[in-house]
Amino acid sequence: MAERLYYRDYLSLDTILSAQHPRSWQQDNPAHDELLFIIVHQVYELWFKQALYELDTVIRIMGKSYVPEHEVGTALFLLERINRIFGLAIAQFDLLETMTPLDFLAFRDLLHPASGFQSLQFRLLELRLGLDDTDRVLRGYEHSLDERDRIELQQARQQPTLFSVVQTWLERMPFLEFGTYRFWDTYRAAVARMFERERRAVAEHPALTPEEKQQKLHQIQLNEAAFESFFHPDRYAELLQKRQRRLSHRATLAALFIMLYRDYPLLQLPYRLLDAVIRLDHQVSLWRYRHAVMVNRMIGRKVGTGGSSGYDYLVQTVVQQHIFHDLSSLASYLLPPSEIPPLPPEVESQLRFAVEVAP
Amino acid sequence: MAERLYYRDYLSLDTILSAQHPRSWQQDNPAHDELLFIIVHQVYELWFKQALYELDTVIRIMGKSYVPEHEVGTALFLLERINRIFGLAIAQFDLLETMTPLDFLAFRDLLHPASGFQSLQFRLLELRLGLDDTDRVLRGYEHSLDERDRIELQQARQQPTLFSVVQTWLERMPFLEFGTYRFWDTYRAAVARMFERERRAVAEHPALTPEEKQQKLHQIQLNEAAFESFFHPDRYAELLQKRQRRLSHRATLAALFIMLYRDYPLLQLPYRLLDAVIRLDHQVSLWRYRHAVMVNRMIGRKVGTGGSSGYDYLVQTVVQQHIFHDLSSLASYLLPPSEIPPLPPEVESQLRFAVEVAP
Amino acid sequence: MAERLYYRDYLSLDTILSAQHPRSWQQDNPAHDELLFIIVHQVYELWFKQALYELDTVIRIMGKSYVPEHEVGTALFLLERINRIFGLAIAQFDLLETMTPLDFLAFRDLLHPASGFQSLQFRLLELRLGLDDTDRVLRGYEHSLDERDRIELQQARQQPTLFSVVQTWLERMPFLEFGTYRFWDTYRAAVARMFERERRAVAEHPALTPEEKQQKLHQIQLNEAAFESFFHPDRYAELLQKRQRRLSHRATLAALFIMLYRDYPLLQLPYRLLDAVIRLDHQVSLWRYRHAVMVNRMIGRKVGTGGSSGYDYLVQTVVQQHIFHDLSSLASYLLPPSEIPPLPPEVESQLRFAVEVAP
Amino acid sequence: MAERLYYRDYLSLDTILSAQHPRSWQQDNPAHDELLFIIVHQVYELWFKQALYELDTVIRIMGKSYVPEHEVGTALFLLERINRIFGLAIAQFDLLETMTPLDFLAFRDLLHPASGFQSLQFRLLELRLGLDDTDRVLRGYEHSLDERDRIELQQARQQPTLFSVVQTWLERMPFLEFGTYRFWDTYRAAVARMFERERRAVAEHPALTPEEKQQKLHQIQLNEAAFESFFHPDRYAELLQKRQRRLSHRATLAALFIMLYRDYPLLQLPYRLLDAVIRLDHQVSLWRYRHAVMVNRMIGRKVGTGGSSGYDYLVQTVVQQHIFHDLSSLASYLLPPSEIPPLPPEVESQLRFAVEVAP
Repeated sequence: MAERLYYRDYLSLDTILSAQHPRSWQQDNPAHDELLFIIVHQVYELWFKQALYELDTVIRIMGKSYVPEHEVGTALFLLERINRIFGLAIAQFDLLETMTPLDFLAFRDLLHPASGFQSLQFRLLELRLGLDDTDRVLRGYEHSLDERDRIELQQARQQPTLFSVVQTWLERMPFLEFGTYRFWDTYRAAVARMFERERRAVAEHPALTPEEKQQKLHQIQLNEAAFESFFHPDRYAELLQKRQRRLSHRATLAALFIMLYRDYPLLQLPYRLLDAVIRLDHQVSLWRYRHAVMVNRMIGRKVGTGGSSGYDYLVQTVVQQHIFHDLSSLASYLLPPSEIPPLPPEVESQLRFAVEVAP
Repeated sequence: MAERLYYRDYLSLDTILSAQHPRSWQQDNPAHDELLFIIVHQVYELWFKQALYELDTVIRIMGKSYVPEHEVGTALFLLERINRIFGLAIAQFDLLETMTPLDFLAFRDLLHPASGFQSLQFRLLELRLGLDDTDRVLRGYEHSLDERDRIELQQARQQPTLFSVVQTWLERMPFLEFGTYRFWDTYRAAVARMFERERRAVAEHPALTPEEKQQKLHQIQLNEAAFESFFHPDRYAELLQKRQRRLSHRATLAALFIMLYRDYPLLQLPYRLLDAVIRLDHQVSLWRYRHAVMVNRMIGRKVGTGGSSGYDYLVQTVVQQHIFHDLSSLASYLLPPSEIPPLPPEVESQLRFAVEVAP
Repeated sequence: MAERLYYRDYLSLDTILSAQHPRSWQQDNPAHDELLFIIVHQVYELWFKQALYELDTVIRIMGKSYVPEHEVGTALFLLERINRIFGLAIAQFDLLETMTPLDFLAFRDLLHPASGFQSLQFRLLELRLGLDDTDRVLRGYEHSLDERDRIELQQARQQPTLFSVVQTWLERMPFLEFGTYRFWDTYRAAVARMFERERRAVAEHPALTPEEKQQKLHQIQLNEAAFESFFHPDRYAELLQKRQRRLSHRATLAALFIMLYRDYPLLQLPYRLLDAVIRLDHQVSLWRYRHAVMVNRMIGRKVGTGGSSGYDYLVQTVVQQHIFHDLSSLASYLLPPSEIPPLPPEVESQLRFAVEVAP
Repeated sequence: MAERLYYRDYLSLDTILSAQHPRSWQQDNPAHDELLFIIVHQVYELWFKQALYELDTVIRIMGKSYVPEHEVGTALFLLERINRIFGLAIAQFDLLETMTPLDFLAFRDLLHPASGFQSLQFRLLELRLGLDDTDRVLRGYEHSLDERDRIELQQARQQPTLFSVVQTWLERMPFLEFGTYRFWDTYRAAVARMFERERRAVAEHPALTPEEKQQKLHQIQLNEAAFESFFHPDRYAELLQKRQRRLSHRATLAALFIMLYRDYPLLQLPYRLLDAVIRLDHQVSLWRYRHAVMVNRMIGRKVGTGGSSGYDYLVQTVVQQHIFHDLSSLASYLLPPSEIPPLPPEVESQLRFAVEVAP
């Protein structure tokens, strides 16, 4: 306590604020905007550090063999914080884009072959979220990393991911079978009723031409086929095999159950958690999209400073690398409130709090 | 079902998109920016309608004589939505400010004496949040409203407010006394220990001059005095009387209890709710502040189009009209985690869920 | 002047605020979130009206046979305003996404077959920006519009677009040939020098393996080939034919000239204008991307309320429908500042202001 | 060229990412949120470094004895960039506020007596913008700085400020007197006509009661008196003396001239520059306001970690420390377009470009 802490020392500002070394400033023609370029990227990396730190905590919580409800609340809260961090990181592109392509050209060649693809922390974020190497669009990117970074990535591959702990947590959900209740059977019957009703509505519709009716019935058939894969574990296994699905059958069912019955007290937080995970996935994609557009604007379709293939590659990552895509696509398999089969009383009572004495 | 719903009709676009009538366009010199001015204000009013609608639901939920935990969750969720609505309404000022003072002058006189002070919905929002007429900075504003709006405001005054329902909900909290446990006594003892420790730390500090010590001890004394008002219901009543406090003594204690013990499962949502209410209060103030700055930029310190006294008045509303100020100022009365007295087992067990079977 | 204008009347609030008619509220089970859904979409349409209005003015200005510099300034300023409008419209998705898929399901079927694809104003925006029907991903969308909207679209097709007026304005630029100066020849020589230098740097690089050198030389060759299409009007014509390019050869050259020499006083505003146009294109794409993600989250990969094919289609529009792609890809053809050939004095003097007496 | 630049080295990431040293992590009870607290503040300081860097360039440009128009454009562009930086810094509070007061208490005492008041860069920003020590609300703040920081502040006091260079640049404007033209006289006559017209309109108004007329005439009289101070250099000097005004009489007139005649080509950029300066002033205030609200939420009205008096003080700085207040208050002294006196041809011709050949 003898020492008097000073703002500058607490924040290590002497270190932080002297860590900008624009390459072009060591030359004849210092480029005005290189400082902006460096600082914006340093801020990205600081945000990534914070996001990794929070993500780590979320994975630790959700990876427990039993996650009490209030810890689901904590995990949810930290996921929302990560979403905010990405919100800031995304907004930051507007600032970076005040640098024009020509401004960038004034120092771009000096950075060769350094490249944003070498951001270890962003790769770690992808890994810890659960991006699989086989799903990765650019598989050879690790060649541009140095030994030390490759080792760190390799170690991260041994760790649980957000995807894996959420999947296990879902698989443990006890309500899919309970006494004689089988969620699966009631859901399947409800789905059949829904399609039957839709078909009848089309058939009886007074304003549709026969051709339109034909088209609509065909559409219903396609939707029905998509549902069918759910009801046949072997077909679902095939989808997993072909990597058209990533989430296990049981985890998918549990997620669907949570979504359908989210209004029950004990499912509220689990539902919000799934929603936050989906939004985090979208935030990461949005960051990627803004990054792709920025790269396109800065360097056109030429190769990036690190020999990367630029915009076309980046846009692919936006679209294809949704990690929790199976969760967000569950929206296709929800039923309108009026068609959701009611739960049997013995399950219902489990989903309520025994004591409710909140203020 | 014979009718085929069309996007334009569903959204009443023929009505919405033909409801802009720039005054200056009926004249020789149409002002380019008057359309922007009208549309930005119409969008504000649409957001206010949505915010009032959500606020109404929150008040209905929290006004129940018993609020089950999952409904606290719903209320919290809607409060966060209102916060997002205000976030957009605040961001909108950046667009409005692309109109310069001179652009505004081109049609400003034509609007006389209409004025933003006449926004009924904003007044309703203030009222429903709980702004008291006696706390209002500009009391005479109702004179500028027409009969119909005055009547509607008068009716709104009869309704419960967010402030009143949150206060009642807090006052009902059962844990302040429980068996032989008295929250108040343990908190008071903890506060005394904290000040004692602080005083000792100052006295024993090797690096402080006698003068600095004197000053610090004086500061501790002031802080202690502030706490004292809490321990004496009569002194607290005096503060209420002088309107230095608005929230009842018991509700204040309950809020403090929730803040201190928010990590217990059953207090998590109540804690988040109080935090959301505080942030909503701040969002409204931020909207006011941006509005004040915009008015200052547009018309300087001259009177507004409705004869309002402009910037100076508006800035006062920002600072003085915090409705939930008593909640946000509770931050002053929290204790560091290490000094918070532990709860007796009989209270602790009440604050846990009896059954915890979440997935 | 006898009438006293009232805020509510000026803004037509009685009309605006009573134009929300949630379908589900006419039924047994009113869906809480349908009001949010309606208001968010009405606000989108108000923003689109404002954006169309500003875009119209920009097209009028830039479509003049002679555009004085300060009017370029006005057009630039209005483009920046449109960019801000889209910024708000994009941020609005965060609010809409507080509605979950299940919330939406509670009223989604009631909206059938209305669909966001039927937003006339968004189609008009695309058209007025210059989206060509042949570039449009979803060509058959007009079938879902009613007669009245189709007629309005048809009329809009007769009008000049931002693309067409910017192209004509660029083609008129007088500096590409001036006296004996030919921009084209000097640029081509500079490009040749640049590639020569790059090749030499690779050849002499001490740290590269022969294989790496081979690879880099190949890359240089590819980049050089891309430049070549610029130097041969017939090859360029082929690209236009194949719709790999949209902007005329001469306009492309003029844009490149402006980008390279943007530091000359008379080219500053034109440069900023091109940059604003590129950013507007990106903002529209970003809106589309957020829309696609939202649709995916709300309804999965099922067909939309209007029979649209949903996410996959929408993502294609994001990537493929950049209207000013040729402008943004010019970044690939810029030269580093040190390699830009100096202008001859007779051109330089034209690009300065004759009188510079600003304060 | 032998060295191969690596992303991590270019950005000094080993330095940046290891510069977080949470105090509580060296203790028994590491506080989860201290990392967030540190990183958010480090990012603030990085933004401040960038803002100072851009501000320095703006001051250098505008401080030249002659500022060619296109350099006004550059200064304007950099001011807009600073505005964006502050936009991000302001948005960052939303992230910081995911830390609650109780989270903060878990490590707050460990930071004593460090305080945000010790941010040297923020003080430098204030100084370089032109905040005068005599206008500063908290004058004694320097006592909390260490010797090194105090010296740096002292040196900064010798440098030109944005306020001083803009003032000098305005004072140099040549058009206030030109041949026989005296801006001042024509403006004064126009103002007189405006008030005369307003008085007549009130007098002849059929719907106003005598009392209302009285009140309105009184208001006009007050406004007129405010204008009068402009017309009497000695009265204006008195205002400067009493520090009710900061900007010199001549600079104020020049700014008014630019605002009134901003549609002339040569005044467009100067006008946009003044507007950007006013918005920068407001952005800084907005940052202060968000900071004040955050401090209030975190620590209530207790003293801050550095012994600062907290919220009340901070709110005062928001309202009172507008540096360019004289510029923004000029909005009060503008005239509606129809009342602005036309310029004599000899001035008009000076305000147009001699050659206008832009594309």
